[in-house]
Amino acid sequence: MNTPTKILLDERDMPTRWYNIVPDLPAPPPPPLHPATHQPAVADDFAALFPRALIEQEMSTARFIDIPGAVLDVYRLWRPSPLFRAHRLEKLLDTPARIYYKYEGVSPAGSHKPNTAVPQVWYNAQEGVRRLTTETGAGQWGSSLAFACAQFGLECEIWQVAASYRAKPYRRTMMELWGGKVYSSPSDRTAFGCELLAGNPDHPGSLGIAISEAVMEAAADPQARYTLGSVLNHVLLHQTIIGEEALLQLAKVGETPDVLVACTGGGSNFGGLAFPFLREKLAGRIHTVIRAVEPAACPSLTKGEYRYDFGDTAGVTPLMKMHTLGHRFIPEPIHAGGLRYHGMAPLVSHVYALGLVEALAIGQSECFARAVQFARSEGIVPAPEPTHAIAAAVREALACRESGESKVILTALCGHGHLDLAAYEKYLRGEMVDLDLPAATIAEAMRAVPVIE
Amino acid sequence: MNTPTKILLDERDMPTRWYNIVPDLPAPPPPPLHPATHQPAVADDFAALFPRALIEQEMSTARFIDIPGAVLDVYRLWRPSPLFRAHRLEKLLDTPARIYYKYEGVSPAGSHKPNTAVPQVWYNAQEGVRRLTTETGAGQWGSSLAFACAQFGLECEIWQVAASYRAKPYRRTMMELWGGKVYSSPSDRTAFGCELLAGNPDHPGSLGIAISEAVMEAAADPQARYTLGSVLNHVLLHQTIIGEEALLQLAKVGETPDVLVACTGGGSNFGGLAFPFLREKLAGRIHTVIRAVEPAACPSLTKGEYRYDFGDTAGVTPLMKMHTLGHRFIPEPIHAGGLRYHGMAPLVSHVYALGLVEALAIGQSECFARAVQFARSEGIVPAPEPTHAIAAAVREALACRESGESKVILTALCGHGHLDLAAYEKYLRGEMVDLDLPAATIAEAMRAVPVIE
Repeated sequence: MNTPTKILLDERDMPTRWYNIVPDLPAPPPPPLHPATHQPAVADDFAALFPRALIEQEMSTARFIDIPGAVLDVYRLWRPSPLFRAHRLEKLLDTPARIYYKYEGVSPAGSHKPNTAVPQVWYNAQEGVRRLTTETGAGQWGSSLAFACAQFGLECEIWQVAASYRAKPYRRTMMELWGGKVYSSPSDRTAFGCELLAGNPDHPGSLGIAISEAVMEAAADPQARYTLGSVLNHVLLHQTIIGEEALLQLAKVGETPDVLVACTGGGSNFGGLAFPFLREKLAGRIHTVIRAVEPAACPSLTKGEYRYDFGDTAGVTPLMKMHTLGHRFIPEPIHAGGLRYHGMAPLVSHVYALGLVEALAIGQSECFARAVQFARSEGIVPAPEPTHAIAAAVREALACRESGESKVILTALCGHGHLDLAAYEKYLRGEMVDLDLPAATIAEAMRAVPVIE
Repeated sequence: MNTPTKILLDERDMPTRWYNIVPDLPAPPPPPLHPATHQPAVADDFAALFPRALIEQEMSTARFIDIPGAVLDVYRLWRPSPLFRAHRLEKLLDTPARIYYKYEGVSPAGSHKPNTAVPQVWYNAQEGVRRLTTETGAGQWGSSLAFACAQFGLECEIWQVAASYRAKPYRRTMMELWGGKVYSSPSDRTAFGCELLAGNPDHPGSLGIAISEAVMEAAADPQARYTLGSVLNHVLLHQTIIGEEALLQLAKVGETPDVLVACTGGGSNFGGLAFPFLREKLAGRIHTVIRAVEPAACPSLTKGEYRYDFGDTAGVTPLMKMHTLGHRFIPEPIHAGGLRYHGMAPLVSHVYALGLVEALAIGQSECFARAVQFARSEGIVPAPEPTHAIAAAVREALACRESGESKVILTALCGHGHLDLAAYEKYLRGEMVDLDLPAATIAEAMRAVPVIE
């Protein structure tokens, strides 16, 4: 064991800039469109929802953006995050591959989400915003925003998908512990929510519906703004600190990855780890195969269409060109709640369309089987979302066992599963099922997607 | 902020020896007694329960004991653990004190318990033991043992206090995820358990009862041994890696603590942090005030008697001289399940009786109020047990605000509260009560304690 188990970075060596991949791409990403006019959206179109600084980042073509000092101060509560060499998993798999995982579960909220929650809250605070709204599914994003709001003294209101609100009371407690107000979505606080509740008082909700409610609420109050935990360019930008740190950490042990795999729902975890490596690859300095892993029950990259679509169910957001299953598509209730989104980040969709990254979909039974192996060897209990990345990494490692290759595999363990043990309980009881997604279902969902000239 | 937020140690600098305080004490600790003869127990008296190597450690007078390489390999999954400077809590409290906390929540099980679970399992494995039994209350110790057994391939059977088994299903899932078998205690697997269930089918159980069951089960099977997560000398020995690391980390930033506070239930967290500092104090190199903090509802140090008593409810263990509330005492169901033990580690009791350390008791409402302040400033959600240490540290920091002193306060954040959010839910709803413990209750409980000539 010459490589240490944990490759740590000192706080002094923490990156001080986020990386924006846009200027390095061979073609510019298609712009968002105004939902009514279908014309390219301009900064003012976002002004009711986001502070100016974040709109600038959303549209920026600068390669690097400095991280504010106040944000770095909060990042230091858990960053730089550790990079692990999975010695004990490798031994269990009897593979000549060398597996590294970047672990984001050390953050207060237990995932990578605070990496963007903290700057989003700080920029809002700088522009005098007093109140932030957002949606949350599994609760990872909502708890991250509540934590960040507690750091800077802003009010935080969270619409949580009703099914999660009922099934995961402890995530709600966590949000409230950090001072957040949590509503079950659909809620009686918005016209859209009331309409849905009138049709079905036990409506399970969806991420798209909760987004609609949080957007409507923010747009109606000049003192309030909306925050999104994934999908948008500025969110992926903030997450690139993951990949920037991983580059430094791998350099410390003299390794470059042959394969990078990361799970993707909205795309911020994947983009956060992958984009700095993609920059190095586009510059010819490394030759890493980069692969996004999505759930078989919500396969926007591998089975969706690359079209302009709304980010939310009600259709109030700008139109974004992305791989989508249709904004009215309600994914099956798989355990990886954070991956249950109908679309994919426009930037991730764009690099996939350009052929710069690969994608695959894996069912949840395989993911949990690999997660149990991981927990018994490496100790950490993974969140359901990164079990997809672990399953893909294990596939690669087992292929190395067959071929005898000593590939270097890098993956992202983007959160712990301490608040997802009900999912493991189901798996251990043999009650977990893989949900089939027929092509006809997807075709049906795509009919609601607007046709753009 | 000249001091970093996290003071990290490299894996290469991790201590490779545990520290045994016994040879450095001004008087030897009173020996354990055989439960029937009341004569000092000898190694063979423990042979049915523990492997020889651990019995040797239990009775050792060597100052340092080398940590086996295989144990160090597993420790590296999370050790060295970080030492934090609580910059943001200090600011919230507006105190000139400098607060440091050693965080053990980074372990797979989320507390300091794996520090001893790993060596206990390894020594048993070395002596051919195939099956380990134990008890668990809140589940921290049971999950740590299950994790350690998964590392070395041993069977793990855990008797979980019935009240916790019902109230905290996710801790049970965690134990099962790592391969442990979990029984509700009292159980129908032991005669003692059957007897209690016959009297009350809904018996809530207690730590003392669960210890009795796990001990009886191990004693009946020559292939099995018993493990204990606190109280005993060898357990405290293994935990000293916490204090040894903290000494190195504070030296890196040129600090020595004026005050050290740590919570204590069985005593292993307190002993683990405090004993290396007590060594330095006894040698005259530092002048730290060392203080144990216990729950007001289970105040063995501050309100118990220093007597020989049994470690378990049924009275099958050797007699240990310790501060005790009586082995038949059933503590109130406070949220800090890990501190609900009738006795105190003989070594902690001994140093307290010698006047080398101080003790205080705090009620749970104050503890949770401080924990919420801690979570909103430092981010981490503390387990209910270390909220006692946080409350004591905050008292000290607020005293510094009054006096203007810049004391250095060191404390142990021995675990995270991700599986204890139900307790926070109660606190946030205003439903948490402080339970009074009348002197008459203690006097009544003490009547069952044997009188030793």
